[in-house]
Order: sequence, then C-alpha cells, then structure tokens
Amino acid sequence: MSGALYVIGTGPGNPEQMTPEARAAVDASTLFFGYAPYLDRLDLRPGQERHASDNREELARARAALDAALEGKTVCMVSGGDPGVFAMAAAVCEAIDADTARFGGVPLTIVPGISAMMAAAARLGAPLGNDFCAISLSDNLKPWNVIETRLRAAAGAGFAMAFYNPVSKARPWQLGKTFNILRETLPNSIPVVFARAVGRPDETIRTVPLSDAQPEMADMATCILIGNGYTRVIARDGQPDLVYTPRFVPEAGNG
Amino acid sequence: MSGALYVIGTGPGNPEQMTPEARAAVDASTLFFGYAPYLDRLDLRPGQERHASDNREELARARAALDAALEGKTVCMVSGGDPGVFAMAAAVCEAIDADTARFGGVPLTIVPGISAMMAAAARLGAPLGNDFCAISLSDNLKPWNVIETRLRAAAGAGFAMAFYNPVSKARPWQLGKTFNILRETLPNSIPVVFARAVGRPDETIRTVPLSDAQPEMADMATCILIGNGYTRVIARDGQPDLVYTPRFVPEAGNG
Repeated sequence: MSGALYVIGTGPGNPEQMTPEARAAVDASTLFFGYAPYLDRLDLRPGQERHASDNREELARARAALDAALEGKTVCMVSGGDPGVFAMAAAVCEAIDADTARFGGVPLTIVPGISAMMAAAARLGAPLGNDFCAISLSDNLKPWNVIETRLRAAAGAGFAMAFYNPVSKARPWQLGKTFNILRETLPNSIPVVFARAVGRPDETIRTVPLSDAQPEMADMATCILIGNGYTRVIARDGQPDLVYTPRFVPEAGNG
Repeated sequence: MSGALYVIGTGPGNPEQMTPEARAAVDASTLFFGYAPYLDRLDLRPGQERHASDNREELARARAALDAALEGKTVCMVSGGDPGVFAMAAAVCEAIDADTARFGGVPLTIVPGISAMMAAAARLGAPLGNDFCAISLSDNLKPWNVIETRLRAAAGAGFAMAFYNPVSKARPWQLGKTFNILRETLPNSIPVVFARAVGRPDETIRTVPLSDAQPEMADMATCILIGNGYTRVIARDGQPDLVYTPRFVPEAGNG
C-alpha cells in the first residue's frame, strides 16, 4: 500500500493563517474530501480531485477517505480551523476504531490549524488569556443535559469559554438557553463576543454584556467567546476596544 | 506616531507550523522582544534587533515593547505557540489597561499561532475531539485553590483537559497534587499524554493510564493532555497508537 491520509485544518479562512505544513499536505495530495466551503479555500491544480460533501455525514466521509488511501491514493481531508477541535480528526479516528483490521495500517498525518477561537481571540485582545474551555453547543452527538452540566461547571469555576456550533436551523433554542444558564451564575456585565467569519472578507465582531446577549446575534459561522469575572473591556484612543482576561486571579477569587 | 506593535505566536517550534501572517509580521518589524528560545526560532536579518528576556517579567517586557512602538518603531513581541493562550497577548493588554492614556493609541495587531495543545493533539489523533479545557497549573499568578476548583469542575463535568506550565523548579508539588485530584473522580484507565517539545527535533510523546502518571514524566517544555471517560487508545498495525475522544456522548453519560 502506498496511499496516505492527511487531515488538515485551513484555519478560519484567512489564507495567511494556513500553515506551510498544511499547504505542503495539499500539494502532496490528489484527492480532497470535505465540506465544500472549506475545499473552496484551496487553489487546486488540474488533476486534483474534489469530493465535496455537506456539513453532516462526517463518519461516512471519513470512511470514504480511508478507503481511497487504501486504494493507494494520497488523500486530504479538509477541515476549517483546527481538525482536532470539533472537526474531522475525531471522525477519522472513530472510523479507524470501528474497523481497525481494515484501516489501522493507513498512514495518517494530522496537521494542526488555527482554530476559530484563537483567531477570534487575537482580534479582540486576549479574552482567553486565563484558563478557558471550548464547548460545542450542538446536541446532535451528545445529550443536552451533558452540555448544561458542562456550562454550569465552567461558569461556576471561573473558566472563560468558547462556544462552537452555537445555532442551526435544527437547533433553534439551545443558545438562548445557554445564555440563561450563564446568567444564573455570572455577572450581567461579563463580555460576550460574537465573532463571525473571522479573517474572511465578511468578518463581523460584536461585544455585548451578558445581559444583552441574544441568540439572534449568532449564526452557524459564529464563534462565541465568554469572559470570566475578571475580563475587562478597554476603550482606546482611535483603536477598537480591547477585550482581555487577566493572567492573574486575586486571592479568594475564582474569576 | 508611526510605530506599531505585533504580538505573534511562532507555533510550538516546527517552522512549518508558523503561519505566513506571523512571518510577514516578523519581516515588517525591526525590534523583537521575547523569551530567548522563541526569538531563536526566527531568522532575523542584519539590522533586526533582539531584546531577549527570561521567561518572567512579562509585564515589564510588554511595557518596554509598547514604549518602543510609541517611539515610532515597528516592534514584534514573540510568543511560542499562540500568543493568546497563557502567553504575551494578555500581558500586553494588561500593560495597556494600566496606562491607557499612554499606550491606548498604539496600533496593536495580535497574530494567532498553533498552540502546543493543538500540535500535541494532532500527533496523537484527536484527544481533544470533544469539549475540553485548557488550564495553566502555575500558581504564580492565581491561588492554588482556584486551580483545584477548576480541576474538580472539569473532571466532574467530563471535559478533556490540556495542562500548560505543569512543573518548574519553583513549583515542584503541583503536578503530583493535580494527578491525585483527578484520581478522586476519573477512572484509572483514562489516558494521560505527556507531549514534550512537540514539533522540535527533541520531541517525545508518551501516553500512560492515569494510574501510572507521575510528575517526573513532565518538565517545563511538556504539554499534558487528559482524556475524558470515553477517550480511547487504539493500537494500529505498523503505526503509533491513536488517542482520541469521540465526538459523541451516550445518553446519561457525562464523559
């Protein structure tokens, strides 16, 4: 067998945020799997073949990519952001795990990328500058009560937070419920950042206090960042506001 | 004022993981601040000046960089990994916040990078493939009881975890205590990954069950990843073991 599978992250969409390592994997590959808008970020050569799919059916897509590698092809599975953060690396591992006899020998290289929360945080200042957690608000693959448990734990212990998959047509109420859960524990003044399409031409970033956060402020392309109790919003002369979470936590505080 | 300050991340050390955006910031700058080993990762031209410092005194370093930008210089503050994850972006924001009248007008651009936990996760498979948190185990800037609260909250709610700053000469007992706290809640079989110097020539990666995790397995250059209750270790034919956390959580489970 001479095939191989690369699982890469393009970063959030700014081509200058895609690593040379990811570009080299694209150059080396002949067959590309992924959600069509992510494949559109690549400048493919004639002869490099696209298998675009919609944003579901990750496991079937992973199996198809592994099968193509078994047939001797050099295959590239394309995620936005980082492939290890709510993206295709876990789906590929699940497919291997489900049929190790078949897929266990496929040479697999996972290439990290700039995750949406990191790109969004960089635009603001350092909202994730202390301990933080990353939570997918999608209850397609885990029960909603698990998400609630994690939200309450993170808010109670003073983690800053990044939310992925905040809303979709099939998940209309989850984000509003999330804000209500946070309001039970966190001060109304905590900054909530709605960072949409970061690094792309249609980027929009909006920061509001938790009291004013509304689910309508997010769509599927939005990464949401939540401060902890010490997060600060700094107005600057002729520059956009800075949002940052200090590195320190005072004695007796839990942020 | 014509000066500017870039705050960049080099990624964990593999030059192929440094983004074109970060390289462009390096090219545009004439004065560089940062921890010496991070500055060593850059190929500076004659005339590009280094102000190397040790790995403490971040706030003084941030002020010096902002002052140089005020004097009209194009300045680059260099972090390893991502500047927004336990690195210099928060220190620069703190320095601005403490003297907004002086520093608020400095043009500031933060350039994200590949964080150590993402590069480590990519080497393994997808250990952070579900909800996770990032925790600095250093109690230099926050009380140890806050760290304990966050560890217990994360373990109890089924987050995977990434630990930064796990040990130092001045913090000899904190990592052992951390493993003991996790053992109160988590199964002994949960995989613990010690990922040292990821992407650098001296990279070493070791995965052990929580029952066997020892503080001596880590040093200052180690990022530690902790699975949740569903994280799997998959032996493969002729390939290194895969470690991944499934995207799904069963009903009634909290991982």
